[in-house]
Amino acid sequence: MDGEKLIYGFGGGAADGDGSQKELLGGKGANLAEMSRLGIPVPPGFTLTTEVCRRYHEHDGEYPASLGAEMELHLAKLEGFMDQGLGSVERPLLVSVRSGGPISMPGMMDTVLNLGLNDEIVAAQMDDGARRFLLDCYRRLLAMYGDVVLGLSMKDFDAALAGCRERAGGDERDFTIDDAEWLLDEYKAIYERSGDDFPQDPRQQLWGAVGAVFASWNNQRAIDYRRLHDIPASLGTGVNVQAMVFGNQGPDCGTGVAFSRNPANGERRLYGEYLVNAQGEDVVAGTHTPRAIQGENGDPGLAEDFPDAARDLAEICETLEKHFGDMQDVEFTIQHAKLFMLQTRTGKRSGPAAVRTAVDMVHEGLIGRAAAVMRVEPHHVVQLLAPELDPGGRESAPEAGRLLGLGLPAGPGAASGRIAFTAERAEEMAADGPVILVRNETSPEDIVGMNVASGILTTRGGMTSHAAVVARGLGKPCVVGAGSLIVDEHVGLLRSGDRVLQEGELLSIEGSRAEVFEGGIPTYPSEALQVLRSADLEDLPESCEPAAAALIELLSWADELRRLRVRANADTPEDAAVAVALGAEGIGLCRTEHMFFHEERISWVRQMILAPSAAVRAAALAKLLPVQQRDYEGIFRALEGRPVTIRLLDPPLHEFLPRRESALIELAATMGLEAEAVADRVEALVEANPMLGHRGCRLGVTAPEIYEMQVEAIVRAACLMAGSGIRVQPEIMVPLTGTKNEMASLRERIEAVTERVLRQQGSPKIDILVGTMIEVPRAALVADELATVADFFSFGTNDLTQMTFGFSRDDAGAFLPSYIEGGILAADPFATLDRDGVGQLVRMGTERGREVNESLKVGVCGEHGGDGRSIEFFESCGLDYVSCSPYRVPVARLAAARAAVAAR
Amino acid sequence: MDGEKLIYGFGGGAADGDGSQKELLGGKGANLAEMSRLGIPVPPGFTLTTEVCRRYHEHDGEYPASLGAEMELHLAKLEGFMDQGLGSVERPLLVSVRSGGPISMPGMMDTVLNLGLNDEIVAAQMDDGARRFLLDCYRRLLAMYGDVVLGLSMKDFDAALAGCRERAGGDERDFTIDDAEWLLDEYKAIYERSGDDFPQDPRQQLWGAVGAVFASWNNQRAIDYRRLHDIPASLGTGVNVQAMVFGNQGPDCGTGVAFSRNPANGERRLYGEYLVNAQGEDVVAGTHTPRAIQGENGDPGLAEDFPDAARDLAEICETLEKHFGDMQDVEFTIQHAKLFMLQTRTGKRSGPAAVRTAVDMVHEGLIGRAAAVMRVEPHHVVQLLAPELDPGGRESAPEAGRLLGLGLPAGPGAASGRIAFTAERAEEMAADGPVILVRNETSPEDIVGMNVASGILTTRGGMTSHAAVVARGLGKPCVVGAGSLIVDEHVGLLRSGDRVLQEGELLSIEGSRAEVFEGGIPTYPSEALQVLRSADLEDLPESCEPAAAALIELLSWADELRRLRVRANADTPEDAAVAVALGAEGIGLCRTEHMFFHEERISWVRQMILAPSAAVRAAALAKLLPVQQRDYEGIFRALEGRPVTIRLLDPPLHEFLPRRESALIELAATMGLEAEAVADRVEALVEANPMLGHRGCRLGVTAPEIYEMQVEAIVRAACLMAGSGIRVQPEIMVPLTGTKNEMASLRERIEAVTERVLRQQGSPKIDILVGTMIEVPRAALVADELATVADFFSFGTNDLTQMTFGFSRDDAGAFLPSYIEGGILAADPFATLDRDGVGQLVRMGTERGREVNESLKVGVCGEHGGDGRSIEFFESCGLDYVSCSPYRVPVARLAAARAAVAAR
Repeated sequence: MDGEKLIYGFGGGAADGDGSQKELLGGKGANLAEMSRLGIPVPPGFTLTTEVCRRYHEHDGEYPASLGAEMELHLAKLEGFMDQGLGSVERPLLVSVRSGGPISMPGMMDTVLNLGLNDEIVAAQMDDGARRFLLDCYRRLLAMYGDVVLGLSMKDFDAALAGCRERAGGDERDFTIDDAEWLLDEYKAIYERSGDDFPQDPRQQLWGAVGAVFASWNNQRAIDYRRLHDIPASLGTGVNVQAMVFGNQGPDCGTGVAFSRNPANGERRLYGEYLVNAQGEDVVAGTHTPRAIQGENGDPGLAEDFPDAARDLAEICETLEKHFGDMQDVEFTIQHAKLFMLQTRTGKRSGPAAVRTAVDMVHEGLIGRAAAVMRVEPHHVVQLLAPELDPGGRESAPEAGRLLGLGLPAGPGAASGRIAFTAERAEEMAADGPVILVRNETSPEDIVGMNVASGILTTRGGMTSHAAVVARGLGKPCVVGAGSLIVDEHVGLLRSGDRVLQEGELLSIEGSRAEVFEGGIPTYPSEALQVLRSADLEDLPESCEPAAAALIELLSWADELRRLRVRANADTPEDAAVAVALGAEGIGLCRTEHMFFHEERISWVRQMILAPSAAVRAAALAKLLPVQQRDYEGIFRALEGRPVTIRLLDPPLHEFLPRRESALIELAATMGLEAEAVADRVEALVEANPMLGHRGCRLGVTAPEIYEMQVEAIVRAACLMAGSGIRVQPEIMVPLTGTKNEMASLRERIEAVTERVLRQQGSPKIDILVGTMIEVPRAALVADELATVADFFSFGTNDLTQMTFGFSRDDAGAFLPSYIEGGILAADPFATLDRDGVGQLVRMGTERGREVNESLKVGVCGEHGGDGRSIEFFESCGLDYVSCSPYRVPVARLAAARAAVAAR
Repeated sequence: MDGEKLIYGFGGGAADGDGSQKELLGGKGANLAEMSRLGIPVPPGFTLTTEVCRRYHEHDGEYPASLGAEMELHLAKLEGFMDQGLGSVERPLLVSVRSGGPISMPGMMDTVLNLGLNDEIVAAQMDDGARRFLLDCYRRLLAMYGDVVLGLSMKDFDAALAGCRERAGGDERDFTIDDAEWLLDEYKAIYERSGDDFPQDPRQQLWGAVGAVFASWNNQRAIDYRRLHDIPASLGTGVNVQAMVFGNQGPDCGTGVAFSRNPANGERRLYGEYLVNAQGEDVVAGTHTPRAIQGENGDPGLAEDFPDAARDLAEICETLEKHFGDMQDVEFTIQHAKLFMLQTRTGKRSGPAAVRTAVDMVHEGLIGRAAAVMRVEPHHVVQLLAPELDPGGRESAPEAGRLLGLGLPAGPGAASGRIAFTAERAEEMAADGPVILVRNETSPEDIVGMNVASGILTTRGGMTSHAAVVARGLGKPCVVGAGSLIVDEHVGLLRSGDRVLQEGELLSIEGSRAEVFEGGIPTYPSEALQVLRSADLEDLPESCEPAAAALIELLSWADELRRLRVRANADTPEDAAVAVALGAEGIGLCRTEHMFFHEERISWVRQMILAPSAAVRAAALAKLLPVQQRDYEGIFRALEGRPVTIRLLDPPLHEFLPRRESALIELAATMGLEAEAVADRVEALVEANPMLGHRGCRLGVTAPEIYEMQVEAIVRAACLMAGSGIRVQPEIMVPLTGTKNEMASLRERIEAVTERVLRQQGSPKIDILVGTMIEVPRAALVADELATVADFFSFGTNDLTQMTFGFSRDDAGAFLPSYIEGGILAADPFATLDRDGVGQLVRMGTERGREVNESLKVGVCGEHGGDGRSIEFFESCGLDYVSCSPYRVPVARLAAARAAVAAR
């Protein structure tokens, strides 16, 4: 291992590493090297590689033997660059220490600034201005070092700072030397009370900070975050040691963060915030209210305070965008009017911004279409299509619609739910319905609670505060900095004027307009969804949101790129029409029983079930036949010749019967039966485990007349359409088969009815496929037998997941949350397909089926058909199509294209 | 195909074929050939091969072109042997036509006798005696031909026969020529009414009978029988055409059936029945009451009526037993004092007879130990161990225990159940509890009803009647020929003197003593079971049943031959002791929750579940701890060092809570809680699908304190035993795991508790294996992951079957019978493992688990662990052990040995 390079330097227009080395240097370190190579002004420094982190953990906190000497070499070079010395009293070198892994992780120890100061250096400073400045730096160092290296409570430091503000009658920029020295003594008192010492030796400080960064890689927060985001622990983190530049050295100094485009809506315009005479932490922490870099309503922003730096920043951002080919999120400091870049990385963005940026960049020639598709994630589209608050609903419920306050639009979309004041309560309450997490500010400890919340509201912080960044990443509606609201998290109160809301009361937020409303407000479809449903690219309304227009274009590219076809699950002609408008290429699952519940029909269904004789049952079925036929006609019409997979009756019959005694008595009266006889029949149909009971094709075997009626209705409807010259592609799907014999005998019966009806109708032959769902594990295991008697398979991954895991979806709420939080399951298997278990059956079923039946069509019609990560897996299995709910169709189109591109 | 031999002749001490050609000639044909070769007197004849049958069905009822000519050649040879001619008026050749497949099938057309007669031949006979004889043969031919070839109703012929008996004032042996001619006219009138003609041309008769045999291969009864017995349809049947010999030609003639040993108890003594001056059908049909070949109480039997034939029969039977190496079931006819053998085959036998015969034959040097083990089927042992009626119970319930009648002991064992008078009702009623099928006589149509009945009672027929043969094959207790009972199947009445029982009333039968009792009578363990439990071979009571002694010896051979170990499922020290006595080598499944239901404990369990605070829950668990510990101590003691697999809590908690409101109120009062609060908690625990709910290791994850208590109790008990020098091998089993993480985290917890308790007890290290059940399909799929954190797997094939099929065992009653009857499933997958589906998971789980963990122990602890066919499969998968209920242990020991021998 000797001679291996463990530290990479950068600065002065050159660097040891470059931007391609994110695995080794971390994202921050690699991009600092890349910026340095591009000639962008970056304070010099060096990066300890992720390899050091891995060895540190492999060897219980010991560093590689050569690290100390290598660090001294790089320190010496840095001292040379800066003409300063670490620990020098005359020209003290101050450095920052920042973590930075290959993937950004807010769960980790982040930053210690001003490292290198000590009592002696501060005491030696004779100049008042410089002394005041160093005192400010020193007390910041004490607080950050205490917090992140020694684990002291930041609240104690904040309390002391608040005390000093009171003492000074202003904020830290107004502190006198006396104030600053008083505050320093207070900070030191915190150390004394804790029994910890602040190391006076700058080298000791440096090693302490480096060790804290490496150790934080395995703290609980970091582990949780990695689990939540599927980041392997083996990646490790790098550590960046960089010469300090100061934004807090006077009114010609400042610090800020910027996005090269607007991360909320994608507009191509520099977007960000800065503070004059401050250090970076002040912007991110949300403790000061920053100014916009380019303000609204003609506010010149940064250009007014720092004209040169503003021009340089704009140029650098454009250079970086061109160089990296994506929207950048940068941190900068202005020291005595000169701009320094401290970081650049790909900017996190909202759904609308992701779509618009990707499409714009294709038009700007920065990236290609496939890259644009890969850059927009499924949740971005979900967010763009997410419902908005219904202003009608808002007006009609005066109490419920009252505007409580305004904040900053940190995450677009609307959400309505019950208030939770802590992440823990949000987790608990989320099981029973949507929750709005309401906090003064959020921190990495809150990540799990934010993940389950439908929306997030904070009273403090700006657009780049923790809450805002995380919410955008999660695609959650979010309002931050709603300062007119008062939140007491401990007591559990949200106050707006004289109005007080408690935990569990309803609240609504509108993340695009940054509005907070009392009560639950109905939502309405987003503009993007409306545009998508009603128009094409050539015919957009003039007022159309740019992101909505971009989405239509992006989806057309996705359609060109994808291999998987996308169908929808729809049970009515109305749903079918929506699905087609949103791009569905067919219906993958039409659940005929949903038609049974319609007001007028349910009584016939019940008569059919309770019929005391075959004749009565036949009469009830005869009444259902024309109704089902009309339903199918409507769906065939809506599909305009696209394939329609109709599933025969699936649920157990008792689902159609009333439970309440009064309803039973009424039903008995209608049927002219004894109430007791009806109650007995209902009782006899009750099952211990209906999920595993008398349902699906088992009904087809034991009560064939129901399937026969359904098939007759399908074939009649198809004949009628064909007679009117409308093309139809019906596919009859048998649910829940587990053996070849089931499928063979039902197929025979289906074909017999089909032939009879075609003959009766005098209709020419209509091609009707007969296939089966694959939803019991056995079906996948014997797929090679089933495929000899099935024209298609459709994986019912909901039930397949239930039976493969042995999880009842209705009951898993009692333990699934613990499983996911405890890391036993990486994700909810009902949302994202479990590749290791259920996925084996999907792959096995597909392969075995195709081995014996080359023309077998294979699709998926569970919830997973609309989930991006699941679709990626289905692409890898070579499925023919996915089918999902109509409103997920656009998401599935994109996800299918991403999967195809990823598989190239 | 030309030149292929389609017909095989036999007779005169030679034969074209031999006994090894059962596939080609059928069992009957092959053995006729073999007997002929052995010089045993067999009437000559020829056999149409099963290949003819296959071609007949492949070509829609057409015969191979060469068949006609080949038949003529064999007919000519037969005419030469007999010096008679088919259709000759002077010396008419009469033949029998009998079906005979490779496997005997009572569901098929069987026999037409006396073929070759017609009006002209009968009319030409001038001798009165010969004429009377031919008239008897002719009317038999008309009846049998009408019944089996033309499908006329045998009832009509029987009615005419009964009319003639009335007319003659005696049975057919007393008929005058006038009576016989009158009867013949009546029979012909039946033909006329039906519109069918009886063919006068003997060749046409012959071809008609041959065609009927082949056609009957695919009638519904035959198809049902094949399905029930797993006989492939491709086997086909042979047809045997054989010269008639006559048992009905006078008082020096007779016919009978015999077993070379007693088929009920295995005694080595010729056993059977015969009729003087009768044809074979009269014996089998049960319409005459035959005489025993060797009677009881010194009755000389056959030796009295036919001394030479009796000696010859005894010699031939011994020859056949030696030749075939097994007990034989023969048919014979005596014509004018000379013995002819018509058939020999391996004799069906009861369980006791099977065991005793097999063991005796080893001692006689006829067969080896492995052959003996292969000759006894699992159901034979089941039968031998089946309960007997408890005479105490009989006495204590005077009305219920009244002896209604006596019959013949056709199938040993006792049964008690509700009366059904038809096979159809038996099927319907069997779903709700044990049924006794009560008939005058049974026929192949009744087979499915006999299969579901717990016992069978008939008023007619002998020990070789249909009912008796089938019941022994099925291992059912059976009493036949209980002539004092009057049964009206149509009205549904069983009368014994003045006592009348109707459908649904309780009845008990004792098949070994041939007793029929009124009411339900408790049962007690069989003598074999008692012997097995209490003694070894060297220490048998003098009065011990020979079959019971033989079973002990047979099982000792089985233990030498088997590879699979056999454990038992036992939850209490008492059950564990029984299991050990019956040969269990360990406990494969100890369900700890069964201990929870004990009177005093259930209230602590409920308090633990409903505890309003952690402290109350801890207190309830603390009370359960010593109780569980004592249970484990008792089990460890009973096992004497053998391994004990203890499964941690599996069922959902709501199973322990009361449902009735009154019980809830009482419980709430005991706990000092509001009744409503308790009701709410109970309500909250109710699940939609408890089978897939919050149970098994999911409880271990969400409520770890329960498992911790259980593990503590196990380890404490083990320490106590080890401290007293008693060896213990505890194996802690986690139920229902589906993911590696579940198992890993629970294993960690189990090991932590184990270490803590060992430390607290100051005990040396005890080896405790930690493993898991494999019962959700996912567990089998990811067995390679699970096996890295499990020391053993135990397949819970009950739940695995439920989830792989998606069949709830509690609910499948609504459709599973239809599935089995309709041939969709070959067998009940909860009784016999489904190799094609569930079996794939068992094999996959075993292979994948062992790939990563060479020392992984693998067993089975579902119901299938005691099923012979399933055990055969488990042997083929290479499992280490099976575990079953204690009383199945002897069966499993035998089945494991059979599987090992079969796998050689």
